[in-house]
Amino acid sequence: MDTHKITTSWKGKMKFESDNPSGDIIVMDSGPDHGGEGSGLRPKAMMLSSLAGCTGLDVASLIEKMKLEVEDFKIITEGDLTKEHPKTYHTVRVNYHFYGKNLNEKKLERAVNLSVESYCGVMVMFRKFANVEIKIEFHKS
Amino acid sequence: MDTHKITTSWKGKMKFESDNPSGDIIVMDSGPDHGGEGSGLRPKAMMLSSLAGCTGLDVASLIEKMKLEVEDFKIITEGDLTKEHPKTYHTVRVNYHFYGKNLNEKKLERAVNLSVESYCGVMVMFRKFANVEIKIEFHKS
Repeated sequence: MDTHKITTSWKGKMKFESDNPSGDIIVMDSGPDHGGEGSGLRPKAMMLSSLAGCTGLDVASLIEKMKLEVEDFKIITEGDLTKEHPKTYHTVRVNYHFYGKNLNEKKLERAVNLSVESYCGVMVMFRKFANVEIKIEFHKS
Repeated sequence: MDTHKITTSWKGKMKFESDNPSGDIIVMDSGPDHGGEGSGLRPKAMMLSSLAGCTGLDVASLIEKMKLEVEDFKIITEGDLTKEHPKTYHTVRVNYHFYGKNLNEKKLERAVNLSVESYCGVMVMFRKFANVEIKIEFHKS
Protein backbone atom coordinates (compact mmCIF):
# COMPACT_ATOMS: atom_id res chain seq x y z
CA MET A 1 0.00 0.00 0.00
CA ASP A 2 1.17 3.48 -0.85
CA THR A 3 1.22 5.66 2.27
CA HIS A 4 2.62 9.13 2.96
CA LYS A 5 3.99 9.54 6.49
CA ILE A 6 4.63 13.01 7.89
CA THR A 7 6.14 13.91 11.28
CA THR A 8 5.22 17.26 12.79
CA SER A 9 7.19 18.39 15.86
CA TRP A 10 6.33 21.06 18.39
CA LYS A 11 9.02 23.70 18.74
CA GLY A 12 7.48 25.56 21.72
CA LYS A 13 4.81 28.28 21.81
CA MET A 14 2.83 27.91 18.56
CA LYS A 15 5.66 26.79 16.29
CA PHE A 16 5.75 23.43 14.50
CA GLU A 17 8.08 21.82 11.99
CA SER A 18 6.78 19.24 9.54
CA ASP A 19 8.70 17.09 7.09
CA ASN A 20 7.82 16.11 3.53
CA PRO A 21 8.70 13.24 1.15
CA SER A 22 10.97 15.75 -0.65
CA GLY A 23 13.20 16.01 2.42
CA ASP A 24 12.26 19.67 2.94
CA ILE A 25 10.98 21.07 6.23
CA ILE A 26 7.83 23.20 6.59
CA VAL A 27 7.78 25.69 9.47
CA MET A 28 4.28 26.59 10.72
CA ASP A 29 3.28 29.19 13.30
CA SER A 30 0.32 31.32 14.23
CA GLY A 31 0.34 35.11 14.32
CA PRO A 32 0.87 37.23 17.45
CA ASP A 33 -2.94 37.60 17.69
CA HIS A 34 -3.14 33.84 18.37
CA GLY A 35 -0.15 33.46 20.70
CA GLY A 36 2.45 32.75 18.01
CA GLU A 37 5.38 34.75 16.71
CA GLY A 38 4.25 34.78 13.09
CA SER A 39 7.45 33.02 12.08
CA GLY A 40 5.94 30.33 9.89
CA LEU A 41 3.19 29.31 7.48
CA ARG A 42 -0.50 29.32 8.38
CA PRO A 43 -1.55 25.66 7.96
CA LYS A 44 -5.09 26.13 6.61
CA ALA A 45 -4.04 28.43 3.74
CA MET A 46 -1.29 25.92 2.88
CA MET A 47 -4.10 23.67 1.61
CA LEU A 48 -4.73 26.19 -1.20
CA SER A 49 -1.04 25.92 -2.14
CA SER A 50 -1.36 22.12 -2.18
CA LEU A 51 -4.23 22.44 -4.61
CA ALA A 52 -2.47 24.97 -6.86
CA GLY A 53 0.78 22.98 -6.73
CA CYS A 54 -0.93 19.70 -7.63
CA THR A 55 -2.81 21.07 -10.64
CA GLY A 56 0.12 23.35 -11.58
CA LEU A 57 2.47 20.37 -11.83
CA ASP A 58 -0.02 18.59 -14.12
CA VAL A 59 -0.29 21.64 -16.39
CA ALA A 60 3.49 22.28 -16.43
CA SER A 61 4.02 18.66 -17.43
CA LEU A 62 1.43 18.96 -20.23
CA ILE A 63 2.95 22.28 -21.45
CA GLU A 64 6.16 20.33 -22.00
CA LYS A 65 4.53 17.21 -23.50
CA MET A 66 2.35 19.27 -25.87
CA LYS A 67 5.33 21.55 -26.65
CA LEU A 68 3.30 24.67 -25.89
CA GLU A 69 4.79 28.16 -25.85
CA VAL A 70 4.03 29.77 -22.50
CA GLU A 71 6.11 32.67 -21.18
CA ASP A 72 4.53 32.85 -17.78
CA PHE A 73 1.89 30.92 -15.88
CA LYS A 74 0.35 31.54 -12.51
CA ILE A 75 -2.61 30.28 -10.52
CA ILE A 76 -4.67 32.47 -8.20
CA THR A 77 -6.52 30.36 -5.64
CA GLU A 78 -9.17 31.90 -3.41
CA GLY A 79 -10.88 30.04 -0.60
CA ASP A 80 -14.04 31.48 1.00
CA LEU A 81 -14.35 30.54 4.66
CA THR A 82 -17.57 29.69 6.46
CA LYS A 83 -18.76 32.20 9.06
CA GLU A 84 -19.32 29.50 11.67
CA HIS A 85 -16.50 27.74 13.52
CA PRO A 86 -14.59 25.61 12.81
CA LYS A 87 -14.00 27.60 9.63
CA THR A 88 -13.71 25.56 6.45
CA TYR A 89 -13.47 26.50 2.77
CA HIS A 90 -16.96 26.23 1.29
CA THR A 91 -16.10 27.73 -2.13
CA VAL A 92 -12.71 27.68 -3.86
CA ARG A 93 -11.89 29.58 -7.07
CA VAL A 94 -8.92 28.38 -9.12
CA ASN A 95 -7.97 30.89 -11.82
CA TYR A 96 -5.30 29.86 -14.32
CA HIS A 97 -3.45 32.77 -15.97
CA PHE A 98 -1.29 32.15 -19.05
CA TYR A 99 1.01 34.80 -20.52
CA GLY A 100 2.78 34.76 -23.90
CA LYS A 101 2.95 35.78 -27.55
CA ASN A 102 1.87 32.49 -29.10
CA LEU A 103 -0.60 30.97 -26.66
CA ASN A 104 -2.41 27.95 -28.05
CA GLU A 105 -5.64 28.61 -26.14
CA LYS A 106 -7.35 25.40 -27.17
CA LYS A 107 -4.48 23.16 -26.06
CA LEU A 108 -3.94 25.09 -22.83
CA GLU A 109 -7.64 24.72 -22.03
CA ARG A 110 -7.30 21.01 -22.73
CA ALA A 111 -4.28 20.80 -20.40
CA VAL A 112 -6.18 22.50 -17.57
CA ASN A 113 -9.23 20.32 -18.13
CA LEU A 114 -7.14 17.14 -18.09
CA SER A 115 -5.75 18.12 -14.69
CA VAL A 116 -9.10 19.27 -13.30
CA GLU A 117 -11.14 16.31 -14.58
CA SER A 118 -8.65 13.44 -14.54
CA TYR A 119 -5.19 13.94 -13.04
CA CYS A 120 -5.25 16.06 -9.90
CA GLY A 121 -5.94 14.06 -6.74
CA VAL A 122 -5.95 17.15 -4.51
CA MET A 123 -8.72 18.60 -6.70
CA VAL A 124 -10.80 15.43 -6.16
CA MET A 125 -10.37 15.78 -2.39
CA PHE A 126 -11.28 19.50 -2.44
CA ARG A 127 -14.47 18.73 -4.37
CA LYS A 128 -15.65 16.57 -1.46
CA PHE A 129 -15.87 19.61 0.85
CA ALA A 130 -16.04 22.70 -1.40
CA ASN A 131 -17.53 24.02 -4.61
CA VAL A 132 -14.51 24.40 -6.88
CA GLU A 133 -14.84 26.99 -9.65
CA ILE A 134 -12.35 26.92 -12.54
CA LYS A 135 -11.44 29.89 -14.72
CA ILE A 136 -8.80 30.27 -17.44
CA GLU A 137 -7.46 33.64 -18.62
CA PHE A 138 -5.06 34.33 -21.48
CA HIS A 139 -2.82 37.39 -21.50
CA LYS A 140 -1.17 38.03 -24.87
CA SER A 141 2.12 39.88 -24.62
CA MET B 1 -16.66 37.55 3.75
CA ASP B 2 -13.41 36.02 4.93
CA THR B 3 -11.34 34.76 2.00
CA HIS B 4 -7.80 33.44 1.72
CA LYS B 5 -6.08 34.36 -1.56
CA ILE B 6 -2.94 32.53 -2.65
CA THR B 7 -0.79 33.21 -5.73
CA THR B 8 1.22 30.32 -7.14
CA SER B 9 3.80 31.18 -9.83
CA TRP B 10 5.50 28.85 -12.29
CA LYS B 11 9.29 29.02 -12.11
CA GLY B 12 10.00 26.80 -15.15
CA LYS B 13 10.17 22.99 -15.45
CA MET B 14 8.12 21.62 -12.53
CA LYS B 15 8.91 24.30 -9.98
CA PHE B 16 6.29 26.57 -8.39
CA GLU B 17 6.35 29.22 -5.68
CA SER B 18 3.26 29.90 -3.59
CA ASP B 19 2.66 32.61 -1.03
CA ASN B 20 0.86 32.45 2.31
CA PRO B 21 -0.94 34.91 4.61
CA SER B 22 2.16 34.73 6.86
CA GLY B 23 4.29 36.35 4.14
CA ASP B 24 6.37 33.18 3.72
CA ILE B 25 6.97 31.48 0.37
CA ILE B 26 6.43 27.76 -0.28
CA VAL B 27 8.59 26.18 -2.99
CA MET B 28 7.05 23.11 -4.65
CA ASP B 29 8.61 20.76 -7.20
CA SER B 30 8.27 17.20 -8.40
CA GLY B 31 11.03 14.62 -8.24
CA PRO B 32 13.36 13.72 -11.15
CA ASP B 33 11.08 10.73 -11.89
CA HIS B 34 8.34 13.21 -12.81
CA GLY B 35 10.39 15.78 -14.73
CA GLY B 36 11.26 17.97 -11.76
CA GLU B 37 14.52 18.64 -9.96
CA GLY B 38 13.27 17.59 -6.52
CA SER B 39 14.04 21.06 -5.18
CA GLY B 40 10.76 21.69 -3.40
CA LEU B 41 7.85 20.25 -1.45
CA ARG B 42 5.47 17.64 -2.86
CA PRO B 43 2.07 19.36 -2.78
CA LYS B 44 -0.18 16.41 -1.93
CA ALA B 45 1.79 15.40 1.18
CA MET B 46 1.72 19.08 2.28
CA MET B 47 -1.98 18.51 3.00
CA LEU B 48 -0.98 16.15 5.84
CA SER B 49 1.19 18.95 7.26
CA SER B 50 -1.77 21.34 7.03
CA LEU B 51 -3.83 18.89 9.06
CA ALA B 52 -1.12 18.29 11.68
CA GLY B 53 -0.34 22.02 11.87
CA CYS B 54 -3.99 22.98 12.36
CA THR B 55 -4.69 20.50 15.13
CA GLY B 56 -1.18 20.98 16.59
CA LEU B 57 -1.80 24.73 17.01
CA ASP B 58 -5.07 24.01 18.82
CA VAL B 59 -3.37 21.58 21.20
CA ALA B 60 -0.36 23.88 21.80
CA SER B 61 -2.76 26.68 22.65
CA LEU B 62 -4.67 24.44 25.08
CA ILE B 63 -1.43 23.19 26.68
CA GLU B 64 -0.73 26.82 27.57
CA LYS B 65 -4.29 27.68 28.64
CA MET B 66 -4.60 24.54 30.77
CA LYS B 67 -1.05 25.09 32.12
CA LEU B 68 -0.07 21.53 31.27
CA GLU B 69 3.47 20.21 31.63
CA VAL B 70 4.59 18.75 28.33
CA GLU B 71 8.27 18.33 27.49
CA ASP B 72 7.80 17.27 23.91
CA PHE B 73 4.88 16.79 21.56
CA LYS B 74 4.74 15.47 18.04
CA ILE B 75 2.13 14.30 15.60
CA ILE B 76 2.64 11.45 13.15
CA THR B 77 0.22 11.71 10.23
CA GLU B 78 -0.14 8.87 7.75
CA GLY B 79 -2.27 9.07 4.61
CA ASP B 80 -3.13 5.90 2.68
CA LEU B 81 -3.50 6.55 -1.05
CA THR B 82 -6.04 4.91 -3.31
CA LYS B 83 -4.68 2.47 -5.90
CA GLU B 84 -6.65 4.09 -8.72
CA HIS B 85 -5.75 7.45 -10.26
CA PRO B 86 -6.12 10.26 -9.41
CA LYS B 87 -4.72 9.12 -6.07
CA THR B 88 -6.43 10.52 -3.00
CA TYR B 89 -6.09 9.83 0.72
CA HIS B 90 -8.86 7.40 1.68
CA THR B 91 -7.66 6.81 5.27
CA VAL B 92 -5.66 9.18 7.45
CA ARG B 93 -4.19 8.27 10.84
CA VAL B 94 -3.32 11.12 13.22
CA ASN B 95 -1.22 9.93 16.17
CA TYR B 96 -0.52 12.42 18.95
CA HIS B 97 2.60 11.67 21.01
CA PHE B 98 3.17 13.48 24.30
CA TYR B 99 6.44 13.23 26.26
CA GLY B 100 7.15 14.34 29.81
CA LYS B 101 7.51 13.53 33.52
CA ASN B 102 4.17 14.94 34.70
CA LEU B 103 1.76 14.33 31.86
CA ASN B 104 -1.86 15.01 32.81
CA GLU B 105 -3.29 12.33 30.53
CA LYS B 106 -6.92 13.23 31.10
CA LYS B 107 -6.43 16.91 30.27
CA LEU B 108 -4.24 16.19 27.27
CA GLU B 109 -6.89 13.80 25.94
CA ARG B 110 -9.44 16.55 26.46
CA ALA B 111 -7.23 19.04 24.56
CA VAL B 112 -6.90 16.65 21.61
CA ASN B 113 -10.63 15.91 21.61
CA LEU B 114 -11.51 19.63 21.66
CA SER B 115 -9.38 20.14 18.55
CA VAL B 116 -10.62 17.01 16.78
CA GLU B 117 -14.30 17.49 17.59
CA SER B 118 -14.70 21.28 17.74
CA TYR B 119 -11.79 23.52 16.75
CA CYS B 120 -9.86 22.21 13.76
CA GLY B 121 -11.35 23.27 10.41
CA VAL B 122 -8.80 21.28 8.40
CA MET B 123 -9.93 18.15 10.27
CA VAL B 124 -13.55 18.85 9.26
CA MET B 125 -12.48 19.14 5.60
CA PHE B 126 -10.42 15.93 5.75
CA ARG B 127 -13.39 14.02 7.18
CA LYS B 128 -15.34 14.83 4.00
CA PHE B 129 -12.98 12.72 1.87
CA ALA B 130 -11.16 10.36 4.26
CA ASN B 131 -11.67 8.17 7.30
CA VAL B 132 -9.65 9.95 9.99
CA GLU B 133 -8.39 7.76 12.83
CA ILE B 134 -7.17 9.45 16.03
CA LYS B 135 -4.71 7.94 18.49
CA ILE B 136 -3.02 9.42 21.57
CA GLU B 137 0.16 8.00 23.12
CA PHE B 138 1.87 9.10 26.32
CA HIS B 139 5.61 8.61 26.84
CA LYS B 140 6.72 9.17 30.42
CA SER B 141 10.32 10.29 30.76
